[in-house]
Amino acid sequence: LREIAAILEGFERRDPAALARAISLVENQRAGFEQLLARVLAAPGRIETPARRTGLTGPPGAGKSTLTERLIRHFRERGESVGVIAVDPTSPFTGGALLGDRIRMESPEVDSGVFIRSMATRGAHGGLAVTTEEVARLLEAFGFGQVLIETVGVGQTELDVAGAADTTVLVLVPESGDAVQTLKAGVMEIADIYVLNKSDRPGADKLGHEIEIMVSMRRGSRSGAWEPPVVKTVATTGDGIGELTAALERHRTYLEHSGVLQARRRQRVEMLTRAVITRTLKRWVWEAARVDEVLAERLDDVLDGRQSPYELAQAVIEQVKSGALE
Amino acid sequence: LREIAAILEGFERRDPAALARAISLVENQRAGFEQLLARVLAAPGRIETPARRTGLTGPPGAGKSTLTERLIRHFRERGESVGVIAVDPTSPFTGGALLGDRIRMESPEVDSGVFIRSMATRGAHGGLAVTTEEVARLLEAFGFGQVLIETVGVGQTELDVAGAADTTVLVLVPESGDAVQTLKAGVMEIADIYVLNKSDRPGADKLGHEIEIMVSMRRGSRSGAWEPPVVKTVATTGDGIGELTAALERHRTYLEHSGVLQARRRQRVEMLTRAVITRTLKRWVWEAARVDEVLAERLDDVLDGRQSPYELAQAVIEQVKSGALE
Repeated sequence: LREIAAILEGFERRDPAALARAISLVENQRAGFEQLLARVLAAPGRIETPARRTGLTGPPGAGKSTLTERLIRHFRERGESVGVIAVDPTSPFTGGALLGDRIRMESPEVDSGVFIRSMATRGAHGGLAVTTEEVARLLEAFGFGQVLIETVGVGQTELDVAGAADTTVLVLVPESGDAVQTLKAGVMEIADIYVLNKSDRPGADKLGHEIEIMVSMRRGSRSGAWEPPVVKTVATTGDGIGELTAALERHRTYLEHSGVLQARRRQRVEMLTRAVITRTLKRWVWEAARVDEVLAERLDDVLDGRQSPYELAQAVIEQVKSGALE
Repeated sequence: LREIAAILEGFERRDPAALARAISLVENQRAGFEQLLARVLAAPGRIETPARRTGLTGPPGAGKSTLTERLIRHFRERGESVGVIAVDPTSPFTGGALLGDRIRMESPEVDSGVFIRSMATRGAHGGLAVTTEEVARLLEAFGFGQVLIETVGVGQTELDVAGAADTTVLVLVPESGDAVQTLKAGVMEIADIYVLNKSDRPGADKLGHEIEIMVSMRRGSRSGAWEPPVVKTVATTGDGIGELTAALERHRTYLEHSGVLQARRRQRVEMLTRAVITRTLKRWVWEAARVDEVLAERLDDVLDGRQSPYELAQAVIEQVKSGALE
């Protein structure tokens, strides 16, 4: 396809417009998106050094966007390029400005070392983990040294998205205190680093202490395991950002020396490959095979109660397996 | 399976414990859940009269639970039995008591004509629409005349869940005013009835008027089409509940006379059958075929960059199609 060739050529020139088009193609799963990914990821020597991937998650209003801005500045000062994916699963009901838009507004100067992309979850419904992973790979392939993945913690999303990061930062605020007591198993456990933002507000010390107790209880006596630190920040003033970036460095060193980084990367590749197999399979059945025709013919049987959807599904699968539908 | 036989026998006796077990089986997709559904739905004459299904959705704090309680009381006074599914997709971050639990707490007397079930979306991830539909069918098969489906409007969920209802009620409050301006296409459009709850608060008239303008703009000049009414309620006092139940009756009459009810039911059966086909297919590949083995063997190629996940997926699909993996 001509569009894919143009994008690949744009990647060579490090043209952000090509990256933006590639992400749109992947996010909307438009024709050829998997060929593009296969080509981009396979280009020789493309991903010699995978990006360092940091995820930031937490409740709405915890200050994740401001923290992300601080981290971008920090990495830029060190000469590193930063790609940001802001995943916003919240409905219009709960509001919340698009994080990427906000950051762009506040930093009007063009900096080719920073690329920020907001991703709504609507289009990626049911496949958010996969799409996030694929977009992160595009950012890596484009050459960003740091990839930040910011997401609002709602429902399953933060767990899905955390899978795409090497290091997950859970951002809480003193007001989260009571919520922490009832956090579902799984949410607290994804954190490699806890950030207690807006820590100049009342209740910060108490919540910090509670998290530390929770972490030490969970850790038990496993020696050598990573002990998630609790870092207090005030993102608006920059207080504590140095401690946060130091904690990110320490976690990086831990990941590399413990073999955990390699294990996480392997898990990600396996998740991605499994998802691609399932996706390809669905496409094969619903697009290539004549399942739609069979369904249209026999749907009345289900409507009239002569057959259950489960029996019809089984019959269709048998036909798919026998090759009768191709 | 013995468990399925016991559940079917419990359905005959209208034993709520059997219904609860059936829902758990379906929600967690435990072994045999599709056989159970096929058996329950196929029992002769089982669903002669499908339940009237009403969905309630809206932002957190709009008073959906209190409205649901009011509707339950209304239906019970008319001698109808009511099954309630409360779908709660919100994360622990945003809080929110389990709606079903709350209602149970406030109505401690046992009423065999009411069954309330909370469903977290965690287990049903990616398949919430299907699971909601399947649980609604269980409630129908059990014999409830009214099925209420209550969900918090977050992200995609309210759209998924609305699909399972005949009539969708969108519950807003005066504070939703600004949010309504920016509501995504699709969210406002699912409403057959708008409820403006807490309408004794400032801003109710203004918001009600805005919604009416929006509805009339959307409707255009299609004659005979349903014009979604705006009903003002104060659920805590019961004000406006009579108007709401009257609007539900009017919409029912419209659904039946216009053919829309039949069309919605057909859509639901088609959605369910398609989803069951996809689910069966996935199970076939991931459980029956030897895809796991192939994946384990070749994952290192992907990790080392000798092959992309997309090429590996294609190769696996080819093997599945050729029958080489069975």
